Amino acid sequence: MPGPIRIVGSGLLGASLGMALRGVGEDVVLVDASPAAAALACDLGAGRSPAPDDPDPRLVVVATPPDVAGKVVTTQLGRYPDAVVTDVASVKGAVLAAVRVAGADVSRYVGGHPMAGRERSGAVAARGDLFAGRPWVITPGEAPPSAVALVRHLASAAGANPVVMDAAAHDAAVARLSHVPQVAASLVAARLIEAADEAVGLAGQGVRDVTRIAASDPALWVQILTGNAGPVAQVLAELRTDLATVIDALQRVDAAADAPGARAALARALDAGVRGRERIPGKHGAPAVHYDTVTVVIPDTPGALGRLFTTLGEADINVEELRLEHVPGREAGLLEVSMLPAARQRFVDVLTARGWSLAP
Amino acid sequence: MPGPIRIVGSGLLGASLGMALRGVGEDVVLVDASPAAAALACDLGAGRSPAPDDPDPRLVVVATPPDVAGKVVTTQLGRYPDAVVTDVASVKGAVLAAVRVAGADVSRYVGGHPMAGRERSGAVAARGDLFAGRPWVITPGEAPPSAVALVRHLASAAGANPVVMDAAAHDAAVARLSHVPQVAASLVAARLIEAADEAVGLAGQGVRDVTRIAASDPALWVQILTGNAGPVAQVLAELRTDLATVIDALQRVDAAADAPGARAALARALDAGVRGRERIPGKHGAPAVHYDTVTVVIPDTPGALGRLFTTLGEADINVEELRLEHVPGREAGLLEVSMLPAARQRFVDVLTARGWSLAP
Repeated sequence: MPGPIRIVGSGLLGASLGMALRGVGEDVVLVDASPAAAALACDLGAGRSPAPDDPDPRLVVVATPPDVAGKVVTTQLGRYPDAVVTDVASVKGAVLAAVRVAGADVSRYVGGHPMAGRERSGAVAARGDLFAGRPWVITPGEAPPSAVALVRHLASAAGANPVVMDAAAHDAAVARLSHVPQVAASLVAARLIEAADEAVGLAGQGVRDVTRIAASDPALWVQILTGNAGPVAQVLAELRTDLATVIDALQRVDAAADAPGARAALARALDAGVRGRERIPGKHGAPAVHYDTVTVVIPDTPGALGRLFTTLGEADINVEELRLEHVPGREAGLLEVSMLPAARQRFVDVLTARGWSLAP
Repeated sequence: MPGPIRIVGSGLLGASLGMALRGVGEDVVLVDASPAAAALACDLGAGRSPAPDDPDPRLVVVATPPDVAGKVVTTQLGRYPDAVVTDVASVKGAVLAAVRVAGADVSRYVGGHPMAGRERSGAVAARGDLFAGRPWVITPGEAPPSAVALVRHLASAAGANPVVMDAAAHDAAVARLSHVPQVAASLVAARLIEAADEAVGLAGQGVRDVTRIAASDPALWVQILTGNAGPVAQVLAELRTDLATVIDALQRVDAAADAPGARAALARALDAGVRGRERIPGKHGAPAVHYDTVTVVIPDTPGALGRLFTTLGEADINVEELRLEHVPGREAGLLEVSMLPAARQRFVDVLTARGWSLAP
């Protein structure tokens, strides 16, 4: 098929996609509402500027901020009447609705959402392997199989795993899997503003994990949440119902220790959390696997981790998960190492024999 | 000071404390409501059974489940009229109140809460270094400095960092720093029960982090939450107010995209999360430090991490934080490595020169 791939928007996603596609030999034309931003991204290897005698693109990828994605998709559909147009916005129903309302040729629009990102933004932070191994959701809408196949090819060329879903199903999924966790993390973290200094000094790994994503960019998240307002509000309303049950149970226990039914209500809420957590798939997309975890005390000096992992490599012990944790008040780290249960005893024996200190 | 240290309760905390104290030469008598449990813990090296001619203990540590801690502290105060009695329950106001109400000699009771634990319970999971480097909160109540000093010595002997706080301040702190994050994690995870299979397949690191502690034991957490019901309910009520604001803003945007003030309300909630998150101290208890993060693609085979960290050690590059992340659908891992910004370029150069693939 002739013609270049046209990417509109030269931020993190657009520039990373351009780098990935050029890496597999595609001709990428990159444009941006800011000519300076486009020029920088092209300099960084994300694509080239359009030329006067370019043929029309066969595929346009809209990689603008989410709040203008629908408008830009509409413009591109009108400008290139033979092209398939896709986008990378993290919410899909709103973009599809905007294209429909604008009266554009919706049969050539295929929604897309690569589930990749990073804490930094802009073309300077772009990487050709940003999408490597990540799910790339494709929402066909009213487009025919040939258009969907083209976007599927795009995702694969970028190294991602294409996943075809209905737009509404996608939005409901990211509400539960991404947007509601973000709101919850922010609300829990906001409670720390009023905490005493001596209180935050007691912060352990639990609160660190729960609030990690609360450090995300508020401006971007306002766009994401408002773009998926209905599904997010619905799941948050479910959460509010459970929260009210928990608060009511705790208030009743506080008022009278033997409050009937209060403990059962709390147990049900906590048990639902255990069951929900179990639904998250494990490594490599497989069902959740139980790992044993051993914590190793790591001196805070270069070389310690090298010695540790060299020992493990020599002993042919495979590590499944790792987390380096800080020891409050000490110049050392605790490294949590997860492994298959069958490997645990050998791990302990090998490290103990080499003089490593294991913490629980 | 003569007499052994008496530990009542041979679960994870009691047995681990016994092991730690015996490791520094203390005479530890270990008892449990279950003689079989006490015998097992003694076999594991956590202490010895009482002998008929033992002198009275100078210090009694109550390490029972939290719901009976107040009752057992009261009993021990009555049985040993010269001993200082402390406990390890994760809530302090309720224990102090129970001792007062029972009319025991509260001047010999010093509350304690070692901030340590693990996902497994029981003496079999006990380790002498469970408390190493962890905060151990001490709540003096009405006890004189000499009694507080004895418990401070206990915490130090176990390798922990003693932190003296008021009982009410402790309970308010753990409500914000531990108990409310636990409830939030459970409520977010519970929302995944209803998610479609294709939806949970999109789970990324964010929801994994937010819901990790939702896998904790519901029965234990019912005890912890009911023991601190008032402070937890109060912080959860604050959270509910913010949640209602977020839901209202999203519902108004969903009804009419230009809903006045809705985006500002969302931005304020998200920004409060950023500010709250910033209050969590960084490594070694120091103020939060900004690290640069680089992600390295790790082949899923033994030896890869060893080669990586050996290279870093040889290049004298110090790693501040680590997280091994799964690549969905791929037999490889992504290792997020955080370092001081000044070390970033050398890190990238050294690894690139050795052929490592860096992802964003």
